[in-house]
Amino acid sequence: MTISSSPIKITAREHVQALLDQYDNFLFDCDGVVWLGETLIPGMVEAIEYLESKGKKVVFVTNNSSKSRDEYVEKFHRLGFKSFRKQQVYPTCYAAVSNLDQLGVQPGAKVWVLGDAGIMHELKEGGYQALGGTDTRLNQAFDPDHPLLEVDPEVQAVIVGSTKDFNYMRIALTLQYLLHNNKSIPFIGANIDRTYPGPHGLILPAGGSVVSYMEYTANRTFLNVGKPSTQFLDTIVAENGFDRSRTLMVGDTLYTDIKFGNDGKLGAGAGSLLVLTGGTKPEDLAHLLHLPEDYEDPHSMTPLYVMDSFGAFVDILKG
Amino acid sequence: MTISSSPIKITAREHVQALLDQYDNFLFDCDGVVWLGETLIPGMVEAIEYLESKGKKVVFVTNNSSKSRDEYVEKFHRLGFKSFRKQQVYPTCYAAVSNLDQLGVQPGAKVWVLGDAGIMHELKEGGYQALGGTDTRLNQAFDPDHPLLEVDPEVQAVIVGSTKDFNYMRIALTLQYLLHNNKSIPFIGANIDRTYPGPHGLILPAGGSVVSYMEYTANRTFLNVGKPSTQFLDTIVAENGFDRSRTLMVGDTLYTDIKFGNDGKLGAGAGSLLVLTGGTKPEDLAHLLHLPEDYEDPHSMTPLYVMDSFGAFVDILKG
Repeated sequence: MTISSSPIKITAREHVQALLDQYDNFLFDCDGVVWLGETLIPGMVEAIEYLESKGKKVVFVTNNSSKSRDEYVEKFHRLGFKSFRKQQVYPTCYAAVSNLDQLGVQPGAKVWVLGDAGIMHELKEGGYQALGGTDTRLNQAFDPDHPLLEVDPEVQAVIVGSTKDFNYMRIALTLQYLLHNNKSIPFIGANIDRTYPGPHGLILPAGGSVVSYMEYTANRTFLNVGKPSTQFLDTIVAENGFDRSRTLMVGDTLYTDIKFGNDGKLGAGAGSLLVLTGGTKPEDLAHLLHLPEDYEDPHSMTPLYVMDSFGAFVDILKG
Repeated sequence: MTISSSPIKITAREHVQALLDQYDNFLFDCDGVVWLGETLIPGMVEAIEYLESKGKKVVFVTNNSSKSRDEYVEKFHRLGFKSFRKQQVYPTCYAAVSNLDQLGVQPGAKVWVLGDAGIMHELKEGGYQALGGTDTRLNQAFDPDHPLLEVDPEVQAVIVGSTKDFNYMRIALTLQYLLHNNKSIPFIGANIDRTYPGPHGLILPAGGSVVSYMEYTANRTFLNVGKPSTQFLDTIVAENGFDRSRTLMVGDTLYTDIKFGNDGKLGAGAGSLLVLTGGTKPEDLAHLLHLPEDYEDPHSMTPLYVMDSFGAFVDILKG
């Protein structure tokens, strides 16, 4: 199946039934799809419960690296997903730590973090020593004489991800590790997201902006372990035994979620469904459809389906 | 004159004498050339005094936007440049404010700042209302309910420059202005510098990294008013009545200072002198000379001359 130039709008019972017939496995982005911050998007608990009641496999894939899988379990339970299990969520803090091994960084090694508690927790769970990150000694104005500015030569990797708690002290220190030993320490970026939808309609800076800051100042490229990394999708597909041709990615962001589903050859070539409950508006989609063919590969960011909200799934199905 | 593939090394009396014969006007970068932070580079006061005693015109061009011209006057006097005058320094906070008029932003207008006191001072001196920047109400953890998150519709431009005092609150607010009104407010970046040389041999994140962060998260381009902007050089040349063919740029950074002199057609085509007292090391220069021709235009970043330190000028001349 190829991607049509205009996505199929899911509005009627027969569209929803077709999705149920075509797909066995559903991957969902979280923020902008399942919830907005701490607010559940109406109908999402019912939609997920319905899919699972029909034997569908459901997993959640988020580029937010701030929360560990254990913290996501709490959040899903708190928002009403009673049967939610830890194995159902893939945050990029978990993806980042999973990638260390194949970069030659073994459990026991020290890893420097610019990011939130999620990365610190997943590192510890993986048997690594986490440095930087939430260390409160770094909550201070920059001081070039600070003893922490001496690079620990045992640090073997740097992970950068979502955080609101960055300051110049943390950024300057992260730069020392990225430049150390002729820039030879692996540099993992947990996501490339520019923004995310905040409360009151605010558009807020996302983790990819912090990664981009470090990429620019260190003048080196990073390994993106988040969506749309095809390697990330390979891991999820392998761990769950999914048949790609029967798998659909549901997300609210064109250059991460939709590209993830399309580049990953889901749904026999293009298994992606865009919802409009998050950062992408109908005019963004219209703009994409009018881009020239040679501009950043617009096809890879064009969803096969579009739906106002996935929370309407059960209502549409029941008429 | 074209740029030779290997720069001429200034080591002997006849080289220094040739510079005096060829050039009437000398543009100097500050950090890494005249000083390192608060430490004067030895011999620089003598070098500048010697040039001026021979009737040479000397101006200083810095991509650091943290200090206003008045603050630079204090710093030059403090470090021993007794006859230094305000008209001799061009920091990019001044360049940013000078650019507002031709962007259609008239004195009296409100301008949002992510940056230090230098931009705030120059805005006020230019008759503008400066918002954001050093406002201490922004020294707090991010709060989506903060009244300052309501965009002031009278803001007509955004200036982003060097600062160590950024936090998520300031960055989130700056993003609101960059996205406001369909991204129509002019976005000025005070520099593109990735790093600068700090104390104890530290390499520290520079202002261009902050500009790059905002460029990435807002997904829009900015007007770079700092080096290597040819418009910035046009302004300096015009205000001082310099003959370009008799003008030399002295700096420590290839992609800003040296490109500024070369792109600006100084010295009859290539009036740039690299010093090794700052961020560029001999191996960086060697690397540049071995880049393929089609890689980021290495010629534009190749200096005509190279000198260990411009502070050696008088010693070399006197034997």
